[in-house]
Amino acid sequence: MKLFQSIFGAAIVALALTSCNGGAKPESNVIAVPSPERPEGQTDMVGFRAEPLDTVRVGFIGLGMRGPGAVRRFTHLDRTSVKALCDLMPERADSANNILTRAGLPAADTYSGEEGWKQLCDRDDINLVYIATPWQNHAEMAVYAMEKGKHVAVEVPAAMNLEECWKLVDTSERTRRHCMMLENCVYDFFELTTLNMAQQGLFGDILHVEGAYIHNLEPFWDEYQGNWRLDFNSKNAGDVYATHGMGPACQLLNIHRGNKMNYLTAMATKAVTGPELVKKLGGDADFKNADHTMTMIQTENGATMHIQHDVMNPRPYSRMYQLTGTLGFANKYPKSGYTFASPDSIDGMPDLENLSSHSFIPDEAKEALMKKYEHPIQKELAETAKKVGGHGGMDFIMDYRLVYCLLNGLPLDQDVYDAAEWSCLGELTSISLANQSRPVEVPDFTRGAWQKLDGYHHYMVGE
Amino acid sequence: MKLFQSIFGAAIVALALTSCNGGAKPESNVIAVPSPERPEGQTDMVGFRAEPLDTVRVGFIGLGMRGPGAVRRFTHLDRTSVKALCDLMPERADSANNILTRAGLPAADTYSGEEGWKQLCDRDDINLVYIATPWQNHAEMAVYAMEKGKHVAVEVPAAMNLEECWKLVDTSERTRRHCMMLENCVYDFFELTTLNMAQQGLFGDILHVEGAYIHNLEPFWDEYQGNWRLDFNSKNAGDVYATHGMGPACQLLNIHRGNKMNYLTAMATKAVTGPELVKKLGGDADFKNADHTMTMIQTENGATMHIQHDVMNPRPYSRMYQLTGTLGFANKYPKSGYTFASPDSIDGMPDLENLSSHSFIPDEAKEALMKKYEHPIQKELAETAKKVGGHGGMDFIMDYRLVYCLLNGLPLDQDVYDAAEWSCLGELTSISLANQSRPVEVPDFTRGAWQKLDGYHHYMVGE
Repeated sequence: MKLFQSIFGAAIVALALTSCNGGAKPESNVIAVPSPERPEGQTDMVGFRAEPLDTVRVGFIGLGMRGPGAVRRFTHLDRTSVKALCDLMPERADSANNILTRAGLPAADTYSGEEGWKQLCDRDDINLVYIATPWQNHAEMAVYAMEKGKHVAVEVPAAMNLEECWKLVDTSERTRRHCMMLENCVYDFFELTTLNMAQQGLFGDILHVEGAYIHNLEPFWDEYQGNWRLDFNSKNAGDVYATHGMGPACQLLNIHRGNKMNYLTAMATKAVTGPELVKKLGGDADFKNADHTMTMIQTENGATMHIQHDVMNPRPYSRMYQLTGTLGFANKYPKSGYTFASPDSIDGMPDLENLSSHSFIPDEAKEALMKKYEHPIQKELAETAKKVGGHGGMDFIMDYRLVYCLLNGLPLDQDVYDAAEWSCLGELTSISLANQSRPVEVPDFTRGAWQKLDGYHHYMVGE
Repeated sequence: MKLFQSIFGAAIVALALTSCNGGAKPESNVIAVPSPERPEGQTDMVGFRAEPLDTVRVGFIGLGMRGPGAVRRFTHLDRTSVKALCDLMPERADSANNILTRAGLPAADTYSGEEGWKQLCDRDDINLVYIATPWQNHAEMAVYAMEKGKHVAVEVPAAMNLEECWKLVDTSERTRRHCMMLENCVYDFFELTTLNMAQQGLFGDILHVEGAYIHNLEPFWDEYQGNWRLDFNSKNAGDVYATHGMGPACQLLNIHRGNKMNYLTAMATKAVTGPELVKKLGGDADFKNADHTMTMIQTENGATMHIQHDVMNPRPYSRMYQLTGTLGFANKYPKSGYTFASPDSIDGMPDLENLSSHSFIPDEAKEALMKKYEHPIQKELAETAKKVGGHGGMDFIMDYRLVYCLLNGLPLDQDVYDAAEWSCLGELTSISLANQSRPVEVPDFTRGAWQKLDGYHHYMVGE
């Protein structure tokens, strides 16, 4: 219900803004989304470093779909110790313990039931709470864990509406605890390599980026306990699962590291497949979310973003990863490749015929380039990651980086503002859709601190 | 200058709409673009049939880049006669005559200079004027030719602003002459085949379509006489060349054949490459158009469209042709393919393993399907077209269909409303961009006649 209260709130704001001051005032084109003032004595978390940890002592909440894989990955991470396992259902917590014992590690304490997760957070021997529950529990659990002095890693999306986004930000700023959203796609091989190429200037000035979550979930709907995922889509309009597209796009555009999102506009198709699915399950057909949703985002430095969401229709899986720069272009789906304004000038590019600024460079050149620009993190971990598995290694790299930065007291790769910025599209797009695609302001969750850093950066020991 | 007067006009409308009635009224979200009333005694041209012609007697205006190819194609079309050739420069008209004489056809009368095109339109022995001049002359020449009782075929875009769109519509309705825009991409093989599949229901309910003009024009700018194309981009913001993406998308969504576009919103990047090009040419760097422009369009039946324009950056050529339906998906760039909800159920689809609703069907299945659903027009003409050439045959099919429908007194494949709808994005997107991506109404150029026909159709003899 929070969602619709907030939409109504925003509509009121729009009303106040537009009434009697006219559409000529540029401000009135965009529906304002006011940010709460930062409480007295609270400071931002941009570039925040916590005290280094000797050992990451972790408790896992949610052991259904994503949780067990995370436990398994932690058995491969040095200087970590799994202290506690929690799920609504006790049998899930127990079977997760088998992962530890099979790996020759001590069994962890287990928790279950409605209040189990709170008991886990209350322990004083853990310093990280790792949350992989259904979406609707993420923010509440993350906030509670930070209040108990724990760093938090939380699955995507970290928050389901603006109110939850601000709760994460304020709690992290007040408690000085990390709140990292577990966005794994930013660690996928093509994305990480291309980010490295972008940061070294191969694409020139990056003008436009795209991202999406296009995944036909038809075979998967019934795997979500209590049908929570389809249920959420039936009750909420908008891009409710934007983070896989937003993460890589925002890192390329240095969002809240010198650049920021200013406003967005969203447009959606009618809902056809969704209502039919619900009808088949005997539910009512009042289905809120569209089959296909588009979002355009304007950023402060003049670059644009395009994000799509479609979990309903028969399409090849795609995250639409793409960037257009003044000197080059990168695209991942359905064909991955690069194009450059003057390919022959790219240092380390083999001198091949038919290189053209109008077509993808040949596969041989692409492979040489990707090898040359393989990200330092990838180089270090690619082999191990592939052995350990989990989304082709990107999940392992994500957990490795989380632990690495916590052990060394470094800023995390994803901070609480990333969590808010990548998660806020759900409600912001629903506001735009409820107002005929009218542009909607994107809040500055850093409340002015977005210019403190100059570009996105993965911190390494010694920095 | 018309463009900016009109933007100003629209801003005034927005002001009037939003002042004191609040942002809560849904109407006030969208900037209104009022349509002029249809003059007394004038009726619409939807499904219009002119008297059949014995021979298409044609005069060509504009023999620079696109014109000579059109003359050459007409030498292969029966029951046509090229009567007149006109270009600003006499030598171009003369050399176009060599195309006729080399083909063993009588030379045509030639016209040149500032007024030559009017003298050509004044002739009483031609019934079709074929216009391939720079953009800015299209509408004025098309209107003059219709006033002289001639049918008109005019290169893309047919009109550069809303005022010109309405002049074409009103002149065609009053003079009862055809005004066909020469949008060739709707006749490309993949587009025409996929349209046939769509019309036979293979994709189910079509929910979302995409299209674009993404073409790095860097090597071509100086081919446009007097640099008119770069100059137009330097003076005008918006998607100034949208028709190649709009044509196939609008045919798939049956625009003004039972469906209509309601409103659009546009977003653009900063201008970087454009200003640099102008500076190199010694011009001033006040460059209006963005390097990359996006548009989202909402239609009456709940389907959406996404259109892009980028002629500045190093990218592979793409028209982004794509459709998402409840039963299937089609994509052309950078990889062409199809995906279906239940591929095995598609009649005529070879029973292959690994057919999945999550990936493109295998090439073998794709080829079999495209052969089975090859468009009747393609079947009839593909071979000839490939011999004659011109954009892989699609230009020839376009001219063939124009002549075929004129000879047989059939409605043309593209009517004056298509010309207006596909060309109006230039100014409509510039209005949205001038108002922070605020949605802008898309006029109903049929003024109520968009429901007369039930779906897009290529007419054949006997219909």
